[in-house]
Amino acid sequence: MTRFSRRTLLTGGVGLAGLGVGAAAVGVGQELSEPATAPSTLPFFGDHQSGIVTPMQAHANFIGLDLIDAADHTALQGMLRLWTQDAANLTQGEPGFSDTEPELAGAPARLSIAVGFGPGAFASQVLAAKKPAWCAPLPAFGIDRLQERWGQTDVVVAVACDDPMTLAHAVRMVVAPVRRRMRVRWMQQGFHHRRNLFGQVDGTVQPSDDRHDDLVWDDGAEQAWMADGTSLVLRRIAMNMDTWEALDRRGRELSVGRSLDTGAPLTGTTETDEAVFSATKGGIPVIPESAHIARAHQRSDREQFLRRPYSYDLAPPGVDGDTSDSGLIFAAYQRDPLAQYLPVQQRLADHDALNEWTTPIGSAVYAMLPGARPGSYLGAPLFE
Amino acid sequence: MTRFSRRTLLTGGVGLAGLGVGAAAVGVGQELSEPATAPSTLPFFGDHQSGIVTPMQAHANFIGLDLIDAADHTALQGMLRLWTQDAANLTQGEPGFSDTEPELAGAPARLSIAVGFGPGAFASQVLAAKKPAWCAPLPAFGIDRLQERWGQTDVVVAVACDDPMTLAHAVRMVVAPVRRRMRVRWMQQGFHHRRNLFGQVDGTVQPSDDRHDDLVWDDGAEQAWMADGTSLVLRRIAMNMDTWEALDRRGRELSVGRSLDTGAPLTGTTETDEAVFSATKGGIPVIPESAHIARAHQRSDREQFLRRPYSYDLAPPGVDGDTSDSGLIFAAYQRDPLAQYLPVQQRLADHDALNEWTTPIGSAVYAMLPGARPGSYLGAPLFE
Repeated sequence: MTRFSRRTLLTGGVGLAGLGVGAAAVGVGQELSEPATAPSTLPFFGDHQSGIVTPMQAHANFIGLDLIDAADHTALQGMLRLWTQDAANLTQGEPGFSDTEPELAGAPARLSIAVGFGPGAFASQVLAAKKPAWCAPLPAFGIDRLQERWGQTDVVVAVACDDPMTLAHAVRMVVAPVRRRMRVRWMQQGFHHRRNLFGQVDGTVQPSDDRHDDLVWDDGAEQAWMADGTSLVLRRIAMNMDTWEALDRRGRELSVGRSLDTGAPLTGTTETDEAVFSATKGGIPVIPESAHIARAHQRSDREQFLRRPYSYDLAPPGVDGDTSDSGLIFAAYQRDPLAQYLPVQQRLADHDALNEWTTPIGSAVYAMLPGARPGSYLGAPLFE
Repeated sequence: MTRFSRRTLLTGGVGLAGLGVGAAAVGVGQELSEPATAPSTLPFFGDHQSGIVTPMQAHANFIGLDLIDAADHTALQGMLRLWTQDAANLTQGEPGFSDTEPELAGAPARLSIAVGFGPGAFASQVLAAKKPAWCAPLPAFGIDRLQERWGQTDVVVAVACDDPMTLAHAVRMVVAPVRRRMRVRWMQQGFHHRRNLFGQVDGTVQPSDDRHDDLVWDDGAEQAWMADGTSLVLRRIAMNMDTWEALDRRGRELSVGRSLDTGAPLTGTTETDEAVFSATKGGIPVIPESAHIARAHQRSDREQFLRRPYSYDLAPPGVDGDTSDSGLIFAAYQRDPLAQYLPVQQRLADHDALNEWTTPIGSAVYAMLPGARPGSYLGAPLFE
């Protein structure tokens, strides 16, 4: 695969859209981490798909789709060409190819549309040998209460945007044109905030930007076509608001290992302070060994991955006295989920104080395609 | 009821919060109508509830609740006191009374929490005579395909905010403390944009601000306690994206009576141009008589009401090949729904070109309480 300068493409992407296509300042509340000066368009073409290491947008919709005929690789190829064409336009503020509501396309608001393959997408004869070894459901964890309705699908499309109407329109343009080829199994809609619905500051510890090349992006060593792609682990984690709120504040801070107000580890004073797990007070660890951050903390350099959690808050189902249907759409990106994500998740599954109030109800793994090269389409290296 | 200056209250409201409590610039895409300089807090106490004539917030959640014991008026009174206390705090960026996630309260982002009563809230002996005559389900329309799950409830709480996390937290503070007294029947979550999901500019024609006093706010003539309250008609209108998109662009413009790009009536050039229904071209009306705006256009001065439509876009149900679950949460506020709203709705139900692609699936009517006076609580005049 020919490499090309990322800088050139980024500039090219903005150039395509024309500067100032969307004024679309962002800022949805003071606690969001995005700068108010964020540009309104993200590049579509490039080494990598946008929406993965991009600063998080305010809203996201993960669409899980199943192929109607998984053996038909040409249908898959057709969908990829079609999505590429539409995403290249929509992300730059232009209508999609068969767009019947072009007026909804004008405010891209940092729209990104990223495509990934689950194991089922490699079912055709042509693609069978192209499946990365890690592209399979995660092993079962004792804490899981997985529901098929939130389970593994053949394909995922991760759409994210700062404007919910632009997002809805883009989702429509992803789903409608492929309706004869794919069925939507689920949509997971969420919003981004630096805190989750438990009030906890979330997503503090992340790989530094200069580690994306070795921790996030695939190098093509196992599957050449995957170079510049990555893996997505998508977990739907229900959060039980009722029982969480019955716990006192100190108990809640100990279960996480961070103070609720500043998000600082219990051994520090500001959010970005490194936690000191060896610190004790009166012989007792300041951060309990069972605290979420103690269990989640990396025990080797490889145990790092990029987390992009979105909160969801839906109407309660209206049965059994439940007063909420809330939780987290936990999206983790890493080169190798088995080496990077799995050991951490296994520790959390074995013992994590937070498990008492959280329940994984969905789980899926996807190979997120490399970026599309101008003039080509997403996933083209798969068919070469 | 003692009247007091609205201006004083507005200033007082901001003062309570402390200027600059929330920087919370708004702006969620360039097409929203809110100025980026909107203050981050809305007053809670005042003649009227906030969130009714307030410029629309980006997100809303209408919560429909049923009383567990409708005969117990003291329970209702207790809920009103509790909601008043929490809403007075939350809207000003302060935690609720029993708030377990106070960190989620700091960015009010123009939060409003408004309470309304359906017919069932007047079921107790004490309140039976206080029900406005119009507070009853609307007559059945031929176009309706109403579902009980979106039907009339005893109480509604309309929560709206520019930040989805602040909104989720406020909704939690409304629902959780009353769980032993009320059951949530539905939540209707939506987002605001000047266009709807059909791409149409929506909400153009509205009563002018100087008509709010006689068209929106109740004067207490029928029920003295309702002075400064209003009525809410809440309709859930499913929009069939699949069949709408099968229609050509010209057909879509004729069905509405407005051009899709500018939102101008077909007889004008800009959105705010007044439609000229008498205009013809080659003997044929430029705006068809069946067009939505021709049918909706007021035929008398009383046929005006304030529309605050929110769009919803949920995951498709996954049956029958539906590719969307999209539509409009149509909220109309007016002093008297029978005199102002009903004749327009009846015309639309009898004949409106748009009916082919839209289906009312939910309908409810509420008496929105007057604003709470400082030191008192929402609905206090009901119990005096």
